[in-house]
Amino acid sequence: MGSTERIRNVAKRVAKWVRAGHQLVVVPSAMSGETNRLLGLAKELSPDKPSAQSFRELDQIAATGEQVSVGLLSLALMAEGLEAVSYAGWQVPIRTDSSFTKARIQAIDDVRVRADLAAGKVVVITGFQGVDEQGNITTLGRGGSDTSAVAVAAAMKADECLIYTDVDGVYTTDPRIVPEARRLQTVSFEEMLEMASLGSKVLQIRSVEFAGKYRVPLRVLSSFTPWDIDLAEEASSGTLITFEEDEKMEQAVVSGIAFTRDEAKITVVGVPDRPGIAYQILGAIAEANIDVDVIVQNVSHGGRTDFSFTVNRNDYARALDILKGGVGPATGAAEVTGDPRICKVSIVGIGMRSHVGVAAKMFRTLSEEGINIQMVTTSEIKTSVVIDEKYMELAVRALHKAFDLEQAPAA
Amino acid sequence: MGSTERIRNVAKRVAKWVRAGHQLVVVPSAMSGETNRLLGLAKELSPDKPSAQSFRELDQIAATGEQVSVGLLSLALMAEGLEAVSYAGWQVPIRTDSSFTKARIQAIDDVRVRADLAAGKVVVITGFQGVDEQGNITTLGRGGSDTSAVAVAAAMKADECLIYTDVDGVYTTDPRIVPEARRLQTVSFEEMLEMASLGSKVLQIRSVEFAGKYRVPLRVLSSFTPWDIDLAEEASSGTLITFEEDEKMEQAVVSGIAFTRDEAKITVVGVPDRPGIAYQILGAIAEANIDVDVIVQNVSHGGRTDFSFTVNRNDYARALDILKGGVGPATGAAEVTGDPRICKVSIVGIGMRSHVGVAAKMFRTLSEEGINIQMVTTSEIKTSVVIDEKYMELAVRALHKAFDLEQAPAA
Repeated sequence: MGSTERIRNVAKRVAKWVRAGHQLVVVPSAMSGETNRLLGLAKELSPDKPSAQSFRELDQIAATGEQVSVGLLSLALMAEGLEAVSYAGWQVPIRTDSSFTKARIQAIDDVRVRADLAAGKVVVITGFQGVDEQGNITTLGRGGSDTSAVAVAAAMKADECLIYTDVDGVYTTDPRIVPEARRLQTVSFEEMLEMASLGSKVLQIRSVEFAGKYRVPLRVLSSFTPWDIDLAEEASSGTLITFEEDEKMEQAVVSGIAFTRDEAKITVVGVPDRPGIAYQILGAIAEANIDVDVIVQNVSHGGRTDFSFTVNRNDYARALDILKGGVGPATGAAEVTGDPRICKVSIVGIGMRSHVGVAAKMFRTLSEEGINIQMVTTSEIKTSVVIDEKYMELAVRALHKAFDLEQAPAA
Repeated sequence: MGSTERIRNVAKRVAKWVRAGHQLVVVPSAMSGETNRLLGLAKELSPDKPSAQSFRELDQIAATGEQVSVGLLSLALMAEGLEAVSYAGWQVPIRTDSSFTKARIQAIDDVRVRADLAAGKVVVITGFQGVDEQGNITTLGRGGSDTSAVAVAAAMKADECLIYTDVDGVYTTDPRIVPEARRLQTVSFEEMLEMASLGSKVLQIRSVEFAGKYRVPLRVLSSFTPWDIDLAEEASSGTLITFEEDEKMEQAVVSGIAFTRDEAKITVVGVPDRPGIAYQILGAIAEANIDVDVIVQNVSHGGRTDFSFTVNRNDYARALDILKGGVGPATGAAEVTGDPRICKVSIVGIGMRSHVGVAAKMFRTLSEEGINIQMVTTSEIKTSVVIDEKYMELAVRALHKAFDLEQAPAA
């Protein structure tokens, strides 16, 4: 929520749903810039070495952004003639563990909220935060408001959880790269999970995981839609993330093309092919707190193999240093090479499970464009390739066309 | 607390006290301007007609200002190498009634705070707020942070409650009017109460009342004192509001001259002197939610008397309308007159109880300056006169001199 004007529009939109007979629980975000402002103040005053206690105080501070929002939205709802009541996470309560700044929701008490809904009130709950067993305020970390909304929807067994974002749904790929990209009316939970983890930043992956765990139907729709459009139109807009695999969904073999630019590749060349090598390499990387994404190890030749993986580009230099510095030689590797100028392109589709030849079609398409494939990994519903980053747009466009994604699947 | 720089200075000051062996509970205010900013946002969005529910939301919003402060101060204390922990009112908890925006403290649980102090921590508690029986956040209204500090000091049975304000103590009168005004080293609780209610805006009167109820020794001192002055010097600076009437205090018959400008006088002339008249007049005023300060009714002549009282100048026109419009004639009064250009000047001193002739000296002093006295009221430790506002400075200066207030009382 940006200005008070935007809060007023959110209130009008909520009022529209309520007047159509729906019971609503609303989980607004902090006003834009507020969380950064608060964390900026905290940073100025923080001790050099953060501790569990200082993280506790960060949460005490950051949680206020959403508390202001719920109060303001409740007032705006009252100004619309509705009854409304706001709760901070601890008032519901939303119970979390004690991992300050990145807490996980453990339980939500729905008694108070149900009573309010039954009394005809709109309930407005702070996102991003909860309370631990000792009564400390915790926050869920960035994007936690989405997760809170899904968790509340799960606790309330809501018909649907509507996530108003700055995009109007999930697309077959990024429309900035492929103008013909098409908004998906539905996408399966598993596909959404793959797309979220592959860099489609529509939803925080944690909120999608949460929705999956509790089977909460999730609709991603645009907060820029005028509040006064027809309710039926709004209710069917965006993209529904669903758990039921109906026939229609089976029609689309590939649902979308995901990609991520900010990776880098490292290869430990000619390591002896014996047990413990993978651990020896990745253990050192994990110890340095570096996340690894794609990992590829192929069959060996003459007792030696190449071990490759990708890391976030920001961690590339550090990871390379670690391996060249000691870990690589210690494994008996011939050399350690790397390339920070790669990208990952993936085709995602729940239909891939039952269709052969999908990966082959992907490889042929790339080959026809003269794009060399450096690494390949596959999962049940996804095939990813690592390629030179200069070919990224070309690859995405070619694959989007090859899998007919600009067309809605035949009924 | 203004900027992060000021918060850092507060932390350094607290650290000085802690290193000298004191256990400290700190109740910081919101950062300057923050409460107004929050209430401004709320005002933009509020319904036209406020309700108990909308006041609840105001408190939900306004309480965040102090929550940010306690978190920031705790971080700054950690940066000073201290252990610190912050609590919002509900975490202590500080229990209040449910009068949103003007709640009253009912009880403070000291268990958690005592355990932290015993563990060597500085405890930082939000002022201005608490939690009601239903778990709603309440605020105490403006100036509530002082009251919170005193209430916490009472609950903890603190040796002293230090209130850092923008003045360096309680003066014999306003130094802007009498440059010779002298800071009082000690002042009795009763005197402070009279001075606070008479417009010496050093402390909120509610916090003084609270200190009196629980006999909390209160020291008013300046937040502008450099944090690194000698601790003994700081500990004896400002003004101590005390409950023990030692000999030294008895020496000063009059401790200070208080005054207030923003009053107006109304007289109902020639009302029949019969039971119920005072109620008939003031009942109508109270019903319009207008506070009355001085009330004077003198003996009657020929069965008729004049009934006079003062109100805040902002309420003057409204009060006059009410009385002229119907209530006045209904009492059988000859007429209703008023004057918005009056002021009230008072001498306050616990010694007045045992000294005769103090009021007489006041009247003589005013008479010598040619100042006409319009109304007089007295209490055990105070004599107030209502005079033309143009004589206010003159009266204050003359009285300050007449009672030798520029001199410290002889030991």
